[in-house]
Amino acid sequence: MAPSMTLPAITISPRIRKSPFFDGTIAAGATHFTVYNHMYMPTSYGDPAAEYHRLLHGVSMWDVAAERQVEIVGPDAEKLVRYLTPRNLGACEIGKGRYVPLCDHHGRVINDPVLLRLEQDLFWLSIADSDVVLWVRAVAAERGFDCEISEPDVSPLAIQGPKAEDLVADLLGAWVRELKYFGFKQTALDHIPLVVARSGWSKQGGFELYLRDGDFGMELWDAIREAGAKYGIGPGTPNHVERIESGLLSYGADHEPDADPFELGLGKLVDLTREDDFIGKEALKRRSTGGAGRKLVGFAFDGEPFVANQHPLPMESEDGAPAGMMRAACYSVRRKENVGIAFVPADYAGIGTQLRFHSGGRVYTGHVAEMPLVKPGK
Amino acid sequence: MAPSMTLPAITISPRIRKSPFFDGTIAAGATHFTVYNHMYMPTSYGDPAAEYHRLLHGVSMWDVAAERQVEIVGPDAEKLVRYLTPRNLGACEIGKGRYVPLCDHHGRVINDPVLLRLEQDLFWLSIADSDVVLWVRAVAAERGFDCEISEPDVSPLAIQGPKAEDLVADLLGAWVRELKYFGFKQTALDHIPLVVARSGWSKQGGFELYLRDGDFGMELWDAIREAGAKYGIGPGTPNHVERIESGLLSYGADHEPDADPFELGLGKLVDLTREDDFIGKEALKRRSTGGAGRKLVGFAFDGEPFVANQHPLPMESEDGAPAGMMRAACYSVRRKENVGIAFVPADYAGIGTQLRFHSGGRVYTGHVAEMPLVKPGK
Repeated sequence: MAPSMTLPAITISPRIRKSPFFDGTIAAGATHFTVYNHMYMPTSYGDPAAEYHRLLHGVSMWDVAAERQVEIVGPDAEKLVRYLTPRNLGACEIGKGRYVPLCDHHGRVINDPVLLRLEQDLFWLSIADSDVVLWVRAVAAERGFDCEISEPDVSPLAIQGPKAEDLVADLLGAWVRELKYFGFKQTALDHIPLVVARSGWSKQGGFELYLRDGDFGMELWDAIREAGAKYGIGPGTPNHVERIESGLLSYGADHEPDADPFELGLGKLVDLTREDDFIGKEALKRRSTGGAGRKLVGFAFDGEPFVANQHPLPMESEDGAPAGMMRAACYSVRRKENVGIAFVPADYAGIGTQLRFHSGGRVYTGHVAEMPLVKPGK
Repeated sequence: MAPSMTLPAITISPRIRKSPFFDGTIAAGATHFTVYNHMYMPTSYGDPAAEYHRLLHGVSMWDVAAERQVEIVGPDAEKLVRYLTPRNLGACEIGKGRYVPLCDHHGRVINDPVLLRLEQDLFWLSIADSDVVLWVRAVAAERGFDCEISEPDVSPLAIQGPKAEDLVADLLGAWVRELKYFGFKQTALDHIPLVVARSGWSKQGGFELYLRDGDFGMELWDAIREAGAKYGIGPGTPNHVERIESGLLSYGADHEPDADPFELGLGKLVDLTREDDFIGKEALKRRSTGGAGRKLVGFAFDGEPFVANQHPLPMESEDGAPAGMMRAACYSVRRKENVGIAFVPADYAGIGTQLRFHSGGRVYTGHVAEMPLVKPGK
């Protein structure tokens, strides 16, 4: 299917869940959706340029309820959480979020959540798109850990962009300005129970409001919309162009399903010196010494402004050898050239390596470029 | 969102996989898609009446590649498979498929695959929409079972309807007529490697061709299209109306995520007398004696021909008490009345129980009806 063709419709049925903000997104003019963690998630409001501009220069509100939580609660919760990730969690304080890649027993990344410790024995994994809850339940049950694992009624709404802090301070109080990156706090907006965190899937700054009762979805949506009016708030979604420019990993999109953390540039989060056991430890030791077989790299390439690719595009070297896959490409507004995130054999990962790929009947030529493709603040 | 509103578009991006038949479905005019096992799956070609008629009276070809396989291979494969399901697999012969609900350690159904034993030490679970591969890997690794678990390059294409057998016999030989229900065989169509099974998610008869190499997707699609022309073949999808009439369970659509097999009418597949251990055994024993808390029932109701519901609709009893959820409703062409599949408290599950629900500003009144709502052959 050519990118210019009209896209098919998305079936709305009870098999896939609606977010508590769904009606708000439709009213705001959402034109495109995807499915993420068995839930509808808007991906566009039909004006990509305006959505990008709002994120870079104003404030944008995103329905990211599909970023579901896996709640782990009970006496063995901490022990289980430490066993689940190769990251060394150190003191693992309440109120400080952590980015914790999860690997299976073979060292393959199966999700890359943010971990939130809400209470001594209560944790959330705020997940990307895979059924982590099934995996955690299997591990906990087979090891006899004493804890309950569930997906609670918690739905994040992201407020992103340079004006996000002013807006969230208006809504919840000036104290939110003191939150450090990934810091979070349990709070409420009037009667609406929330966890507020300084986080979000962009590099433009902002917050995520984890709504703790879906019944208040539209109330929260409307409250933010109204309070945000003076800042010119508008709807947005996880932004294809900004995230490529910023080099944010999209789990499941940017790599093959057997990728390990070293290949995905997450090696610094793997602590092989830990004395306690964790899933995939032996496999990760082998992978760490074997050297990354492939690598996630930035790529800059020629041609007319590139329309987002619909599927991974095979890349090749100057002499025509297979050289991995272009996973996510776009025209970078800030770099003023085409860029992408590619998953390539380590031999082709050096900055400056010339590669090419085919799309829509023409050849695109470019070179491996430093990540992030656009530096923060540019 | 009112059902009459234009549906949003589905974003096509590398995060979700394309089926090997994707280009064929687009060329055939697919108008609606969903996402199933992280893959696009067509749900309509824009003419529901024609698609239903073809399935009931002719032959229909469905891209169900999203019904992915979890492959389990190795010395402990059989031991693992038996541990994964509460069903007693008995002799578990090569070539005979089995419907095997999977339950977690708490007795909750997490998928309802068909099991295919291809070789002594090689099994496929042909799954509904959840990441069974992560769950099986966790179980196998934690128990130290010696086997490999993967998602192979296998993509089912269903051929359904009363003329399916003639067509598949033309393609693969008269021997396919001898296959019993769920029987299967490894074979090939010229150079295209296949497993052919008498199966499919309808009660109209037919086969599933499990394509074993995605590179041949369009070749297989076109071969079926061409050989099927004399039978009036056309494209179709898992059929919303036919499956409700026939009482086929749609995992994830028809129930809450904590449902057990007794509640879903799958109790006869749970063998609590088995001497060997299996996941959820103790929990299922407790649930079996506790009596099903809820029950999946058929429902027949009044009103103008009903358009498919977008989300579960709360039901209530004659005196206004909450009485579960209408999960999937439609106008039954064969019964000539509105019907649905509801998940209700056991107290309201008796045949003839009067219940009602609200949708689109009006009240629908009806009664619990025997399943299947339309008997096979009607």
